Amino acid sequence: MPNKFARRMGTVHRSFIREILKVTADSEIISFAGGLPNPELFPVKAMDIASREVFAEIGASALQYSTTEGDAGLRAIIAKRYEGRGLTIDPDSILVTTGSQQILDICAKVFLDKGDKVVIERPGYLGAIQAFSIFEPEFVTVSLEDDGPNLEELEAAFKDGAKCFYAVPNFQNPSGVSYSLEKRKAVAELTDRYGVLFVEDDPYGELRFLGEDLPSVYSFCKTPGILCGSFSKIAAPGFRIGWVVAEKEIYDKLVIAKQASDLHTSTVAQAIMRRYMESNDIESHVALIKDRYGRQRECMVEMINTYFPDSVSITKPEGGMFLWATMPEGFSSMDLFDLAIKDKVAFVPGRPFYTDDSGENTLRLNFSNSDEARIEEGIKRLGKSINSFLE
Amino acid sequence: MPNKFARRMGTVHRSFIREILKVTADSEIISFAGGLPNPELFPVKAMDIASREVFAEIGASALQYSTTEGDAGLRAIIAKRYEGRGLTIDPDSILVTTGSQQILDICAKVFLDKGDKVVIERPGYLGAIQAFSIFEPEFVTVSLEDDGPNLEELEAAFKDGAKCFYAVPNFQNPSGVSYSLEKRKAVAELTDRYGVLFVEDDPYGELRFLGEDLPSVYSFCKTPGILCGSFSKIAAPGFRIGWVVAEKEIYDKLVIAKQASDLHTSTVAQAIMRRYMESNDIESHVALIKDRYGRQRECMVEMINTYFPDSVSITKPEGGMFLWATMPEGFSSMDLFDLAIKDKVAFVPGRPFYTDDSGENTLRLNFSNSDEARIEEGIKRLGKSINSFLE
Repeated sequence: MPNKFARRMGTVHRSFIREILKVTADSEIISFAGGLPNPELFPVKAMDIASREVFAEIGASALQYSTTEGDAGLRAIIAKRYEGRGLTIDPDSILVTTGSQQILDICAKVFLDKGDKVVIERPGYLGAIQAFSIFEPEFVTVSLEDDGPNLEELEAAFKDGAKCFYAVPNFQNPSGVSYSLEKRKAVAELTDRYGVLFVEDDPYGELRFLGEDLPSVYSFCKTPGILCGSFSKIAAPGFRIGWVVAEKEIYDKLVIAKQASDLHTSTVAQAIMRRYMESNDIESHVALIKDRYGRQRECMVEMINTYFPDSVSITKPEGGMFLWATMPEGFSSMDLFDLAIKDKVAFVPGRPFYTDDSGENTLRLNFSNSDEARIEEGIKRLGKSINSFLE
Repeated sequence: MPNKFARRMGTVHRSFIREILKVTADSEIISFAGGLPNPELFPVKAMDIASREVFAEIGASALQYSTTEGDAGLRAIIAKRYEGRGLTIDPDSILVTTGSQQILDICAKVFLDKGDKVVIERPGYLGAIQAFSIFEPEFVTVSLEDDGPNLEELEAAFKDGAKCFYAVPNFQNPSGVSYSLEKRKAVAELTDRYGVLFVEDDPYGELRFLGEDLPSVYSFCKTPGILCGSFSKIAAPGFRIGWVVAEKEIYDKLVIAKQASDLHTSTVAQAIMRRYMESNDIESHVALIKDRYGRQRECMVEMINTYFPDSVSITKPEGGMFLWATMPEGFSSMDLFDLAIKDKVAFVPGRPFYTDDSGENTLRLNFSNSDEARIEEGIKRLGKSINSFLE
């Protein structure tokens, strides 16, 4: 067979991050490389109780096939929680997905023909780059500034015929950057003006530990957009439960694509998550996570100020799980990585978050999955590596 | 936007079966339409115990992100069980998937470029038609005879440049047909000779209640093929856990596609299934299912012989969950469906299982999800509808 694999497989690569995680399995290495929530905060006991109740009360139906749209009770809970964030969402406009990664896959299926222009942030979320790449779009990137995308670049991309704009306006992965209120409104105004579909990915939005909560870009858009959410960061990622909000015409297409992808999301997982949400005070739980991540982030910034040279700049995230560092031009974080591993500390080089081979001098640091003692020791080690590297 | 949706969405339709299931929600209707396992046989208590043990022993890690490849212990169990069926499978060649539907999606991603020729059985499995359609291949169908595919048609399709052949050799959905030993060998010989990738879907293989177990086509293939399996029919479908076996070069590509699709299958669901498999005698459980389905199938065939006119022919499945009926040419099972619904009985018209708009006079009957009393009453009602319809 001359063409054994589909052409698209030539452009899609195994996640570099997941490869790095193998290198960092060494327990002596302090790793800021992963993107994991802190497992100490997982509600294990409450999930155990929820699961016992599910098996006792609706055992057989929790083990059966179910609808593609998802558990009606769970969708009602998701809708209800948006009320608290000032959004009126019809439960029938919510589709439960197998993690929010699946949303990216089904959105690509529904919207992207080969060569379609999809706008992403630079740096951009790796999972989206991977999911979209399968459908061979043309990536157009816009610089991410401290308060959101560069609007001139964004408008130029829209004028040039972009089909959709995928973004993470709250505490973006990888940069930790959040959009200002002004830029949220401006982005919505631009997507409306140019008829570009806005796909708002918001896995971290509830994890704000500094500043004021801001409305979603989705809430400012007049043309129907897509809003994505997830239980992974507020409850636990092991269930693989995310969701997407979309108006009916789009929703119906997403359901067809979801059905073709995996029929439906795990009935058992949805039933346990629903029961957990019904029986527990999720808002207090989220407050606990925010408090912990806030302290860990504060510690990381303080340690960076102490141990990194002044020539390295960092973002100051107001929420989420990541912080982004930029070294002077000409230095490669891939080379730094090798040095850091010798010093028993790890991070993710920034390069994979760029589709244009730039970003060589950047790196991503995760603060959610290390306590303050490990952050202090890890940043000290990394400061040593960086200082000797930049000398 | 002139092209709001991707071109592919024009050719993919919502599952007709899932639409039918809505019509049949009326509790007075006896439905042979669904494709559900019998929930009375779900191991609810054992799953409850397994889940308690998981939360008690590995709670936090069962709630965390995990590897794309899947739980190592679960993969070892899957490999071990193949031994009992005469196949030596390396656990590292097993990728856990979100149901076996996902295998079809990731196989399509890895292998199918637009316009590639994919061979399927006529009638064919609807989930595969849907999953593949997203990637816009050209479907080439081969007639399914009582003992497997028509070999002349298959060879002609292979000669004409087919890239892969997707088939369900054991108790096929929708027809209930199984391949004879001779046809298994012949299919393997043809795929080898023409270098066609064979994708063997085997969700029902362990549910044989008549005749002798036969080796998989996969075991006869010299060129590496793909073997798919699932816990949905032997344990419970609500977990959405399937798996695919493939040799390394293909495996690595499947992992990349899976990662882009949903990162990994639910950690919690995999942990509970693994514990369930470790602590219970699955072989006795499968024996229980086979006994029940065997009796239900026997009852259905007997009732059909009693109540259907002789002009309607049926398959005589030796396992699985479905039986296939063919009316004389010129009669439409879509029209019969409307009549049957008035008589409070439902089935699936055969048309959606054909990609060429044929099969108008065929219908699928499910026997796994109705007890013998309901089968007797339901087939009596359907016999009445058919008799008046064919008059």
